[in-house]
Amino acid sequence: MGNLEKKDIANWFQDLQNEICQGLEKVDGLGKFSQDVWERPGGGGGKTRIMVNGASIEKGGVNFSEVYGKTPEKITDALNIKHSNFYATGVSIVLHPRSPMVPIIHMNVRYFEMDPTSSNRHRTWWFGGGIDLTPHYIDLEDARFFHQQLKTVCDHHHPDYYKEFKKWADNYFYLKHREETRGVGGIFFDRLTSTNDFTKESRWGFVQELAQAFLPIYSQILVKNKDKTFGDQEQDWQRVRRGRYVEFNLVWDKGTKFGLDTGGRTESILMSLPPQAEWHYNYQPEEGTLEHHTQNLLRRNINWIDGTAI
Amino acid sequence: MGNLEKKDIANWFQDLQNEICQGLEKVDGLGKFSQDVWERPGGGGGKTRIMVNGASIEKGGVNFSEVYGKTPEKITDALNIKHSNFYATGVSIVLHPRSPMVPIIHMNVRYFEMDPTSSNRHRTWWFGGGIDLTPHYIDLEDARFFHQQLKTVCDHHHPDYYKEFKKWADNYFYLKHREETRGVGGIFFDRLTSTNDFTKESRWGFVQELAQAFLPIYSQILVKNKDKTFGDQEQDWQRVRRGRYVEFNLVWDKGTKFGLDTGGRTESILMSLPPQAEWHYNYQPEEGTLEHHTQNLLRRNINWIDGTAI
Repeated sequence: MGNLEKKDIANWFQDLQNEICQGLEKVDGLGKFSQDVWERPGGGGGKTRIMVNGASIEKGGVNFSEVYGKTPEKITDALNIKHSNFYATGVSIVLHPRSPMVPIIHMNVRYFEMDPTSSNRHRTWWFGGGIDLTPHYIDLEDARFFHQQLKTVCDHHHPDYYKEFKKWADNYFYLKHREETRGVGGIFFDRLTSTNDFTKESRWGFVQELAQAFLPIYSQILVKNKDKTFGDQEQDWQRVRRGRYVEFNLVWDKGTKFGLDTGGRTESILMSLPPQAEWHYNYQPEEGTLEHHTQNLLRRNINWIDGTAI
Repeated sequence: MGNLEKKDIANWFQDLQNEICQGLEKVDGLGKFSQDVWERPGGGGGKTRIMVNGASIEKGGVNFSEVYGKTPEKITDALNIKHSNFYATGVSIVLHPRSPMVPIIHMNVRYFEMDPTSSNRHRTWWFGGGIDLTPHYIDLEDARFFHQQLKTVCDHHHPDYYKEFKKWADNYFYLKHREETRGVGGIFFDRLTSTNDFTKESRWGFVQELAQAFLPIYSQILVKNKDKTFGDQEQDWQRVRRGRYVEFNLVWDKGTKFGLDTGGRTESILMSLPPQAEWHYNYQPEEGTLEHHTQNLLRRNINWIDGTAI
């Protein structure tokens, strides 16, 4: 590949945004994305694309951003370095389907670079990302399919990737105050840089293959479930689960907190919130119901592929 | 008063909870509080009282707690002290009215004590608290009445209290990521301890008078507005404003974050969340509407009593 430059990565992410938006419009059949182009006062900006009231997608966002400038103090403090300049580009997706029988999905892929500082003469860079599925009703077949697809992508790049990144997702997409996972998890990774075992190109190849798997994976899950019947009970439960999605994003999600803290574009960050949510004091699904079955599966360390620990 | 002991304060807070619950049941006329008694694994516990589906109060909580034990690391780190034992008691109230024409209200009053440590030979203690009003539609007459009542309470105790604590509330009940206040503010204070000018009894007298003002103040605002007509437009706006209430509580409220971080009782903490909320991408009320009028008044440094800077 020769020299992989940040501009190549950003351009590829922009193409990814286009492909995913076109693909989702095709799968949905009705909804169209509208675009807001925004600029960041400190440098860079993004393209926020939102679909509302599609046939299957009630509210969804597919966002591209490329931002740079003086590194926010929150980062330099966290990394214990002096001020410097940073560059970050990525694509973030959250889709809230209309039907409670269709899972919510999230994916983020990103690249980060920081200029040399007085304490580090080299430019540092890394890739990060994650994808996770949040069914309102857990379907074991879908969970297995989802994880098997992710494992296949991971296995093309390193035999430890899936195991390691699946565990990372279990711990990341976790509501500590509820002692429950957000959904059936997926994979999560951060700070992937070059090592003896990995070149920049090999890390990037992994991120690219994952990003390109998003559309076929979610399309299959959406099409399989979108015509299932549901009623008031399922919609009530969906609003409760959407409340938990809000709790995760606003209380625990590091990207959301960091963005809101450092003056990111609020409407682009909070596109991840569902169209509606409900909170009922001390809500507990009744034993023996499908809602109770799902609640019981919101646990870490489940091997969704072979069904261990279910 | 002689020696003001923590037990006296906790007992008074329990009586306060009883009085406020009885008073709210009377004003509502239909809703009744149900109670959950809970224990804290590390020491102490509380009584959570929730009303749902009252005539005027759609969802409300009036919580008493008295907790003690080893001081959580989050506190000892923040205060830069070694581990010690703490004691905390207080009452927290959030009421979400059914009608969008009636404001949401919140009050918290609390007492905190920490045992002597190696770096501080004395027992430390302080009072904290706050009350703020979040109208879905700002009524200047109500905002003025609310602030005038708080000022009257403050003025009985110190000429600087209202000015200082009103400013503190403006800065505390603030959604930085939206650049908007939660509502019309109120007063907020913390770490009120004894000084040359204040005894423990005088601080406590202020907290007591404020706590006792809650019921008459909110009753008057509720009764004045509860029978106003409203329709779909007002309810849509209410759900948007409730979304902002969720954002404040989950992103910025220190009490909520601290509670969830340190293993507080989740359902008691999150009783503050509204029954429903909505999020619309980039929602902006139209110019000239009452919604736009309210949005424009969600600013700090408004003197609601004399109308300056409106």
